[in-house]
Amino acid sequence: MTDEDFVIGRNAVTETLKAGRSVNKILVANGSNNQKIIALANDLKIIVEFVERSKLDKICGGKNHQGVIAQVAAIQYSTIEEILEIAASKNEPPFIILLDELEDPHNFGAILRTADAVGVHGVIIPKRRSVSLNSTVAKTSAGAMEYVKVAQVTNIAQTLKILREENLKIVGGDMEGENIFGGADLSGGIVLVIGNEGKGIRRLTRENCDLLLKIPMCGKINSLNASVAGAVLMYEIFKQRNNF
Amino acid sequence: MTDEDFVIGRNAVTETLKAGRSVNKILVANGSNNQKIIALANDLKIIVEFVERSKLDKICGGKNHQGVIAQVAAIQYSTIEEILEIAASKNEPPFIILLDELEDPHNFGAILRTADAVGVHGVIIPKRRSVSLNSTVAKTSAGAMEYVKVAQVTNIAQTLKILREENLKIVGGDMEGENIFGGADLSGGIVLVIGNEGKGIRRLTRENCDLLLKIPMCGKINSLNASVAGAVLMYEIFKQRNNF
Repeated sequence: MTDEDFVIGRNAVTETLKAGRSVNKILVANGSNNQKIIALANDLKIIVEFVERSKLDKICGGKNHQGVIAQVAAIQYSTIEEILEIAASKNEPPFIILLDELEDPHNFGAILRTADAVGVHGVIIPKRRSVSLNSTVAKTSAGAMEYVKVAQVTNIAQTLKILREENLKIVGGDMEGENIFGGADLSGGIVLVIGNEGKGIRRLTRENCDLLLKIPMCGKINSLNASVAGAVLMYEIFKQRNNF
Repeated sequence: MTDEDFVIGRNAVTETLKAGRSVNKILVANGSNNQKIIALANDLKIIVEFVERSKLDKICGGKNHQGVIAQVAAIQYSTIEEILEIAASKNEPPFIILLDELEDPHNFGAILRTADAVGVHGVIIPKRRSVSLNSTVAKTSAGAMEYVKVAQVTNIAQTLKILREENLKIVGGDMEGENIFGGADLSGGIVLVIGNEGKGIRRLTRENCDLLLKIPMCGKINSLNASVAGAVLMYEIFKQRNNF
C-alpha cells in the first residue's frame, strides 16, 4: 500500500476530477494541450503543477499519459487482522461481511452504508472477479466507505477456514437455505456471506458455510436485490446482538 | 387512463427501445433521417410504420417529433379501492406502502421489488413532487412493476384518513420515532409510510401516523438508503404476519 496513486491520461483525470475523488494535485506537461482539465482543476481549487514531459514518462513507465496525470490519495484496503483487532478493541464479538464476487458498485456502496449503520467491523472481498472500491462505491455509500474497513483476499475458502478457527460462525444468505433467517441463532462472532447478484454464493463458498439462511418471499419475482437481502440479514444480526 | 401512450422524438424513442419497454410500433415520417432507430426496432422485431409527416404532427400536437414516435403500452395506475379489493379477495389484512414524496426512481424500483416479495397489496404515491412510474423504475424493479399495483393520489393526508377509517394502522418510518421497529406490534391491516430520501416524512403526514418506527443505527453515517430502510420495515411486517 502506498499513500498515493496516479491517474493517467485525459479522460481518466477528467472523470476523477468530476467524481469528486480526493486529488492532491494535477501534473501537466509543459506545452501539452490540456486547457480543459486545467480550467476544471482551477474551478475545484486543485493545484496544477507544470512539469517536463519526461517527469510524466517516468511516473507512468511508458503509458500514454497525454501530458496529464493526477496524483490522488490511494484507496486504502485493510486486512483481516485489522478487522479482528477493531472488534477486539471494542470488546465486541466480530461482525464481518464477506461479498462473494459481488459485481455492482451500487450494491457494494449500499451494503457499506448499511454495514456502517449496524456496526460491522469490516467487509471482505475477493481480489478477482469482484467489484472493488471506486468512486461509484464511495458515492453510493454516502460516505460510509471512509469508515468501514474493506479487506481484499486471494482465496475465499481459505479465508473462511481461518475465520472459523477464530470461532466465528459462517452464515450465508441463500435462496435455497434451509433456515428461515428470523428463527436462526445469529449471536456471537459471525461472518455473513452475500453472493453474486445473479449467481448467488458459489458452491465452494457455500460448502464452507455453517448455516444457510433463507429470506422468505411470496411474490412473483423470486429474488431480492443483493443490497436489500444483505440489509435484511444484517439487521436481523444487529437485532439479536442488541436484543431489540 | 388510455391504453396507449406516445413517446416523441429521436432520443426518447431510442431510450424507450433500449430500456425494453413494451412498444406496440414505431411511426416514422416518410423521408426523415431515422435509420438508426429503424435498425434498432428491426433488431427488436418491433413493427415500423412509415407515415406522412402530418400524421405525426397531429399526434403530438406541435411538439418537435424529429420524424419519429413510438406507440407504447400505457402505464396503468391503480386505485386505492382496487388495492383494498385485492387484499379482500386474498382474505388478507391489507398491507399497503405509501411513499411520501420519494424522488429517486432507483429507490422506487427497489421498493417495488421488495414489496412484491413480501406480499404488499399496493403502493400509493402522491401525484405531485414524487417519482412516478417510468422505464428506470421498471428496470430497477426487476419486473415487479408489472405485478405490484401503484395508485396515485392528490392528497396524502386525506388518503390516510380514509385508510384509517378502514381500520388500517398507519405506521411511519422515522429517524426520530419513539418505537424501535422490532418491538412494535405490526400485525393486522397496515399502511407503511416511507419518506423522502433527504427530508423524510413531511410534518403533516407524520401527524397522521398512529406509530412512528425507528430503525436503530450505531455508525458514523446517520441514515439509511430509503429502499433499505423500507425493506427492513417491510420484512419486519412480513415476519409478524407469517410468524417466522
